[in-house]
Amino acid sequence: MNLRIPGPIPVPKEILESMSRPMINHRGPEFKEILYRTTDRLKQVFETKGDVYILTASGTGAMEAAVVNTLSRGDKVLNVTVGVFGERFGEIAEVYGAQVETLAFPYGTAVDTEEVRKVLSQQPDIKAVLVTHNETSTGVTNDLEAIGKVVKGEFDKLLLVDGISSVCSLPLSADAWGCDAIATASQKGWMLPPGLAFLSFSERAWQAHAESDMPKFYFDMAQYKRYLEIGQPPYTPSISTMFALDNALDKILQEGMGSVFERHATIGRLTRDGVKGLGLSLFPDELVASDTVTAVKIPVGVDAGLLIGRVKEDHNVVIAGGQKSLSGKIFRIGHMGRTTDDEIEQTIAALAKVLPKVGFKAARVPAGG
Amino acid sequence: MNLRIPGPIPVPKEILESMSRPMINHRGPEFKEILYRTTDRLKQVFETKGDVYILTASGTGAMEAAVVNTLSRGDKVLNVTVGVFGERFGEIAEVYGAQVETLAFPYGTAVDTEEVRKVLSQQPDIKAVLVTHNETSTGVTNDLEAIGKVVKGEFDKLLLVDGISSVCSLPLSADAWGCDAIATASQKGWMLPPGLAFLSFSERAWQAHAESDMPKFYFDMAQYKRYLEIGQPPYTPSISTMFALDNALDKILQEGMGSVFERHATIGRLTRDGVKGLGLSLFPDELVASDTVTAVKIPVGVDAGLLIGRVKEDHNVVIAGGQKSLSGKIFRIGHMGRTTDDEIEQTIAALAKVLPKVGFKAARVPAGG
Repeated sequence: MNLRIPGPIPVPKEILESMSRPMINHRGPEFKEILYRTTDRLKQVFETKGDVYILTASGTGAMEAAVVNTLSRGDKVLNVTVGVFGERFGEIAEVYGAQVETLAFPYGTAVDTEEVRKVLSQQPDIKAVLVTHNETSTGVTNDLEAIGKVVKGEFDKLLLVDGISSVCSLPLSADAWGCDAIATASQKGWMLPPGLAFLSFSERAWQAHAESDMPKFYFDMAQYKRYLEIGQPPYTPSISTMFALDNALDKILQEGMGSVFERHATIGRLTRDGVKGLGLSLFPDELVASDTVTAVKIPVGVDAGLLIGRVKEDHNVVIAGGQKSLSGKIFRIGHMGRTTDDEIEQTIAALAKVLPKVGFKAARVPAGG
Repeated sequence: MNLRIPGPIPVPKEILESMSRPMINHRGPEFKEILYRTTDRLKQVFETKGDVYILTASGTGAMEAAVVNTLSRGDKVLNVTVGVFGERFGEIAEVYGAQVETLAFPYGTAVDTEEVRKVLSQQPDIKAVLVTHNETSTGVTNDLEAIGKVVKGEFDKLLLVDGISSVCSLPLSADAWGCDAIATASQKGWMLPPGLAFLSFSERAWQAHAESDMPKFYFDMAQYKRYLEIGQPPYTPSISTMFALDNALDKILQEGMGSVFERHATIGRLTRDGVKGLGLSLFPDELVASDTVTAVKIPVGVDAGLLIGRVKEDHNVVIAGGQKSLSGKIFRIGHMGRTTDDEIEQTIAALAKVLPKVGFKAARVPAGG
């Protein structure tokens, strides 16, 4: 099966095999070694001298951890959103009692930092900004570096980032860009099965933690910090996925982050060129299109469910539909982690064969154009 | 390695191998089938006609879920505790704003239901009772059936249970015993790696959920319920551990719960007889000793760290020490899941060889006694 959804993605065989290693004591010396080794290397990937913690949870769990560890009830926060996952970030903050101000940009567009600057100027009582680096629901990458310059550089606010589908795939520098907490999850660029989430946590985030009154237990980073000092997790972790993480980080750092980012940029371009070559339109503006997930408009006259269903049934390629209000309007191709050119070409070929059968009439592509 | 801590425990090879299966779409038909099949069979193991949800978290996460989904800030709850994990249950409720009344029994003893009855009579404003079925830190099993008769039968209170090291190992009947929410985790009797937790949730728990104002997002069971209706998890789950769960449930239900319980009772007795045969003393009263974990007193003159260290180094058997105030005072042998007689005999043999080398002078065991 060519699993081309935006996570989980196919996991290299060797990494999958490391999931089958026999259990070890999560409070013993072998685990301690793995915990320290993986934590150190996660910091390299996040480009941070701050902390990174490993949680047994999905990415949403890590988003919740970013919120409840730094904010207090009644805190005013700005949620800058460009899609479904951005909205989720705001919902989490609201559930835990933050006063959420929303700055929403239309689906398919990216954050306009000028607007962020405007809101932060007008509302100096905002304590933190929540933002999605790469919005999986719309296939858009925000310019997090520019956002960081405004949020941290100009206004010195806490910056909490959903980096779930970006960290380890797209360039991101936690410290240099002023990110205080970045959440990500194993089933994305890390080439791993789901089961673990990672959260970076800056010195500034720790200061906020000291004042935070949002309730937390399983996701209380103070416990993670305290236990990390003795080389242990606070609660029994997904040991198998830790084995796989250890293995995946070998591969990732051996390849080098520069090459990992370049590979994602290339595969993103290949995917976009492929779908455009079929006469389809990208959902976002190409300038802000993501290199980890490509969102494509469902052409007029085509039924999204039928298209996605036949691509799977006839060609064994699994692509994703749109979420919430985008359901039926877009489909999405995931290409994070170690996606090969072949896998993308197979996906494009499958679409080429299925599209005419589900009512798509391609606009004539000008010859030699 | 003979991993004899109270979880994780050694996982059968075939189940470990299922952890290496390629990824699938957690929102696709294959996963839906696995989710429904595993959920149905989990209900059989819990003996409930109510709900059971699968969380990607440790057992502590499921304990938090039991609390935050049924209680409100200011609710008065009775935490009936016999050890470290019982204390944790109360801490979680307190962190989320419950008013926690503690009924603590000494480490090594079990809950006296008469005392529970007394407190519930004296304090009719108590809304819920939290209790540990099997206390991993002291090796004690509480009589949950008797507790349920008092808490539910006589006083009709919400009953929230930490069944982490009991469900699927010790007899437990969620509905018949009046349990509204029971938390457990994959690395215990289920013969699985850690990574998943399971939570049973009664109709009465749902009524409490409707009134509950404790904040929750990742652990909000309403999301799990809503998504289960369409055969999906709300957030990306630990798919590999789901594959393994599917496989383990085949084995468990094929064997039959009666046989599973009998096997645990036999192995528990074998372990206790083994340690007593060495001249060691059980930490709890034998009448309440657990069949999933055996806690043993560290004899006078023996250093716990030295004993545990040499058992591992010289014999490749990993046993656990005591937690918190029990550190240095007890060691613990885990025997949940598919523990064999050989594994226990090997453990006893290792102890027999190491004990004299670390200063243990056995009391003379009367010949023919």
